Amino acid sequence: MLLDAILSPEDLKKLRKEDLPNVSRELRDEIIRVCSLGGGHLASSLGAVEIIVALHYVLNSPRDRILFDVGHQAYAHKMLTGRRDRMPTIKKEGGLSGFTKVSESEHDAITVGHASTSLANALGMAYARDSLGQDYRIAAVIGDGALTGGMALAALNTIGDSGKKMLIILNDNEMSISENVGAMNKFMRTLQVQKWFQESEGAGKKAVGAFSKPLADMLSRAKDSARHFFDPASVNPFAAMGVRYVGPVDGHDVLELVYLVEKLVELDGPTILHVVTKKGKGLDYAEADPIKWHGPGKFDPETGEAPKSSAYSWSTAFGDAATELARHDPRVFVITPAMREGSGLVKYSREHPNRYLDVGIAEEVAVTSGAGMALQGLRPIVAIYSTFLQRAYDQVVHDVAIENLPVMFAIDRGGVVGPDGATHNGVFDLSFLRSIPNVRIGLPKDASELRGMLKAGMKIGGPVAIRYPRGNTERVPEGTWPDLEWGTWERLVEGDAVVVLAGGKALEYTLKAVQDLPGVGVVNARFVKPLDEAMLRQLAVKARAFVTVEDNTRVGGFGSAVLEFLSEAGLKTPVRVLGIPDEFQEHASVESVHARSGIDAQAIRTVLAELGVDVPIEI
Amino acid sequence: MLLDAILSPEDLKKLRKEDLPNVSRELRDEIIRVCSLGGGHLASSLGAVEIIVALHYVLNSPRDRILFDVGHQAYAHKMLTGRRDRMPTIKKEGGLSGFTKVSESEHDAITVGHASTSLANALGMAYARDSLGQDYRIAAVIGDGALTGGMALAALNTIGDSGKKMLIILNDNEMSISENVGAMNKFMRTLQVQKWFQESEGAGKKAVGAFSKPLADMLSRAKDSARHFFDPASVNPFAAMGVRYVGPVDGHDVLELVYLVEKLVELDGPTILHVVTKKGKGLDYAEADPIKWHGPGKFDPETGEAPKSSAYSWSTAFGDAATELARHDPRVFVITPAMREGSGLVKYSREHPNRYLDVGIAEEVAVTSGAGMALQGLRPIVAIYSTFLQRAYDQVVHDVAIENLPVMFAIDRGGVVGPDGATHNGVFDLSFLRSIPNVRIGLPKDASELRGMLKAGMKIGGPVAIRYPRGNTERVPEGTWPDLEWGTWERLVEGDAVVVLAGGKALEYTLKAVQDLPGVGVVNARFVKPLDEAMLRQLAVKARAFVTVEDNTRVGGFGSAVLEFLSEAGLKTPVRVLGIPDEFQEHASVESVHARSGIDAQAIRTVLAELGVDVPIEI
Repeated sequence: MLLDAILSPEDLKKLRKEDLPNVSRELRDEIIRVCSLGGGHLASSLGAVEIIVALHYVLNSPRDRILFDVGHQAYAHKMLTGRRDRMPTIKKEGGLSGFTKVSESEHDAITVGHASTSLANALGMAYARDSLGQDYRIAAVIGDGALTGGMALAALNTIGDSGKKMLIILNDNEMSISENVGAMNKFMRTLQVQKWFQESEGAGKKAVGAFSKPLADMLSRAKDSARHFFDPASVNPFAAMGVRYVGPVDGHDVLELVYLVEKLVELDGPTILHVVTKKGKGLDYAEADPIKWHGPGKFDPETGEAPKSSAYSWSTAFGDAATELARHDPRVFVITPAMREGSGLVKYSREHPNRYLDVGIAEEVAVTSGAGMALQGLRPIVAIYSTFLQRAYDQVVHDVAIENLPVMFAIDRGGVVGPDGATHNGVFDLSFLRSIPNVRIGLPKDASELRGMLKAGMKIGGPVAIRYPRGNTERVPEGTWPDLEWGTWERLVEGDAVVVLAGGKALEYTLKAVQDLPGVGVVNARFVKPLDEAMLRQLAVKARAFVTVEDNTRVGGFGSAVLEFLSEAGLKTPVRVLGIPDEFQEHASVESVHARSGIDAQAIRTVLAELGVDVPIEI
Repeated sequence: MLLDAILSPEDLKKLRKEDLPNVSRELRDEIIRVCSLGGGHLASSLGAVEIIVALHYVLNSPRDRILFDVGHQAYAHKMLTGRRDRMPTIKKEGGLSGFTKVSESEHDAITVGHASTSLANALGMAYARDSLGQDYRIAAVIGDGALTGGMALAALNTIGDSGKKMLIILNDNEMSISENVGAMNKFMRTLQVQKWFQESEGAGKKAVGAFSKPLADMLSRAKDSARHFFDPASVNPFAAMGVRYVGPVDGHDVLELVYLVEKLVELDGPTILHVVTKKGKGLDYAEADPIKWHGPGKFDPETGEAPKSSAYSWSTAFGDAATELARHDPRVFVITPAMREGSGLVKYSREHPNRYLDVGIAEEVAVTSGAGMALQGLRPIVAIYSTFLQRAYDQVVHDVAIENLPVMFAIDRGGVVGPDGATHNGVFDLSFLRSIPNVRIGLPKDASELRGMLKAGMKIGGPVAIRYPRGNTERVPEGTWPDLEWGTWERLVEGDAVVVLAGGKALEYTLKAVQDLPGVGVVNARFVKPLDEAMLRQLAVKARAFVTVEDNTRVGGFGSAVLEFLSEAGLKTPVRVLGIPDEFQEHASVESVHARSGIDAQAIRTVLAELGVDVPIEI
């Protein structure tokens, strides 16, 4: 195998160009094998193989900087930069990250996981390079979905203006995790339709010849050029932004890519090379359904069959509830920032296509379009992962909370998410949401309570956040709409001496921890804002200590809310605050991160023992 | 006066079209008078007069929705919608807001203050309208600066795709608060250079005739059309985004605008009308220097002379320090998101033009380009207002903090800002920054300590936030660089029984409050993260109570940090937490908001009396 001789990009460069298609094939086979055994970001990594081979063949990493937007397409990059033997450890505790990570390798230029950050990083690097009088090269690989994120467009605006030298590879595979949406996407399709790179041999070379001439010149070579040229949709926004545009070219023709990258990376100023790739390239079933194969678990590489799971995810529980809710209430409207599948909204989007909006990778737009809807009489639900809601913090404050607008947030992946690691953990939301006036926060313990909170939330004329974890819950029958008063806690286990207060995932651990410990009370603290102050006051009379447990940073979260209330109320009951420590959590299983964070059942028992509870032995 | 008869938009409609230029003139005169007496957003409000008159003449507000991006250009709108008599109260306590505000008038479609939100709001409104089967019209007015914000570009991408009917007025005055930057801006200049609307009478009418034909057709009418058409900078990104483009037209020709709005607002799908205006229009000195006249205080309308102030602002104190620091350290690089003047960076940008970057209204790009710089050896300082840093919360977490990158944040306008009100108060930063691992937070008490923190911060290989308020401080001599150990507090007033812990602005109040109260200790709690835990432990031995005071929400802020530490350490000293209450603060003077929030000197004395301190009488 050619790969056996490649321990670093230097080794790759020793190969003849003619070998690069074989290297690409070997990488692709190995990516399939690795993912089939342990899961991983299969489709996008298959799509980017040739781009990565070409970049490492031409550039000199780590001196030259290669940035991967989102970073989940970079498996081939990891394999070419000395991490091939560790690929089976990817996303596992102590193993490789699923994304690029600065602290993992000198070849990883940025630590990443969220979309649309590569261009702003590249901009900063170009300024650093020029300001320090250095001369390395900078190449950023960004997908078409990520490019339509506002932050990427705004960075492009500054890049075009700056005239800074860099190469941007637009990896256009026609989809992010969901299908792509938006006008930019349609525009890229328009460019692709021309497919002039397929129409004549060596068209890419012609493109290089053409870059110094006006775009018009390039487009005029296309068939139907008159139509495209005069169709407003076919004019080129990249050129308007001041960025030289070359493309589209075949992103799986590695020799063509090498040729283009060699030429383009030397040009002054910023250049976009528009490359067309296929997500899941080389694997029939993945090419056919790249959304399904975005990040599969284990599977049989021959058949594409994966172990079936009958589990009912929290995402599906939300999607089912929203679908049903929308049947009863015409004001319901669900918004997603490019996460239809991940947020459990496939069914909803089919049943209520006119009350569903996917804004693409633009969390800010998701939240503020929700504000606009609420102002005009709808009751929008923004379905969003906790980690991505971080992108729209200001929009929650400025556009929703100030006027107390009835926008509901269905926050998925709240708490530790595990294998995706630090970039994706949703462990800050209780802290950053709690400090925003008017925002109510609930943590359902199961699908029934989720529905109760949706129903109760709809009655509140203001912003409501319902936060649930990654993972599964119990399915509930259609029509389950329990009554629930927002802000009321629930005593689940009687006990007065020490009372554990916990909601959501943390409640699961708590119930497990106290099952054989009479005298310890457990409260389903399902509302973080407002707290059930009446119950807290009542409990404080008898309790010699409270323990709060949360799947959130212990800085400024639920435990702090309890401390604040007790302090304000002059109640002196001591509180032990359990939560995620004030440091970023590396990837591992959710359970493992919870254990090392000290919030699992064992940790709770240990704390109870310290508080004088008679804890028999380990459970 | 025509205005005397206009108490609502209905009254405006009763006028003959021919009267509209006079109405515009009267509005302009009155805006100048109002601003000269009490200050206000003069230049942008003068620039938008004719746009506003035309919109209200054609549309039926409040049924039709008129959205103003940022909302500070809408003085004429307020005057035409029944608030003319209250204009002298603008930005004053109990008076009108300086921005549009839903709770102030049914004619204010959105509550706003931050840039780039109008298009996402309009998108949501269009979905609400169509989803509920209604048929009102939607018009959004957005400046060229705000349009280049990522959120606006991303919204435009979805608007173009949605095909939703709305009119977007691009109010192109060639600047936001600072000079505009970015490639989009250059592109707009290119369109303007053509100035074909000036070259032939009634060109706007021709534009309307042209909108249904391709852009090419329109552009071909311009002189030099061949050159522009084939210059990549002159192709049209709006059209590429799927939005019909008409323009540019003269934004001060109110009759032309009425004609255009009448036609364009009825078209299906989204339309951009590109309107060229002059900030400060009608006032010589404001037209000549619209940055200076963006938001002046009182002035003499005849001469443009304003009372001179010798005050030394915190912004200037930072700018001076950064200018000096950059002389000594070649790694220093300052980034601003369109706030050169507001952040005190005029001097810096002149002395260090190659180590200065204005990314435009794109806070996300400001922070993440800083991350890119830090990764490549620079020590960037992102100079940003607290309220705008909210826009880049995720970038602080994901791009800076996870890898503990040495990016420094110079956070201006931390705490209550007063007259700009709820949208601009910087009262959440201590809470949202504190919960991010690796982020250090300092609150200097004066310019000298600010410099000490900059110096100390440069020695830390990780993210550092230095937060200071709106307002003034004492000037310090060049070369003032005191040594300061990050994380150490300072005992300013000895006293053991009750100890007040406060930093920054809150410390000023505290020192004033305790001046005649022997026995009360005061600590300059200048670091919110990390706390000076050693000093806290020491103080806790003797103190019967702590009082914390902060110019930040009391939810999750400095006081909570102290509660968390004491709880964790098992220290039982009670704490009274003083801070901004958990509700949005309406505009008023800073002092007034602080008084009603209970953090001023009087409030601190009241609390000390409650804690048993012998407080003589009111100060």
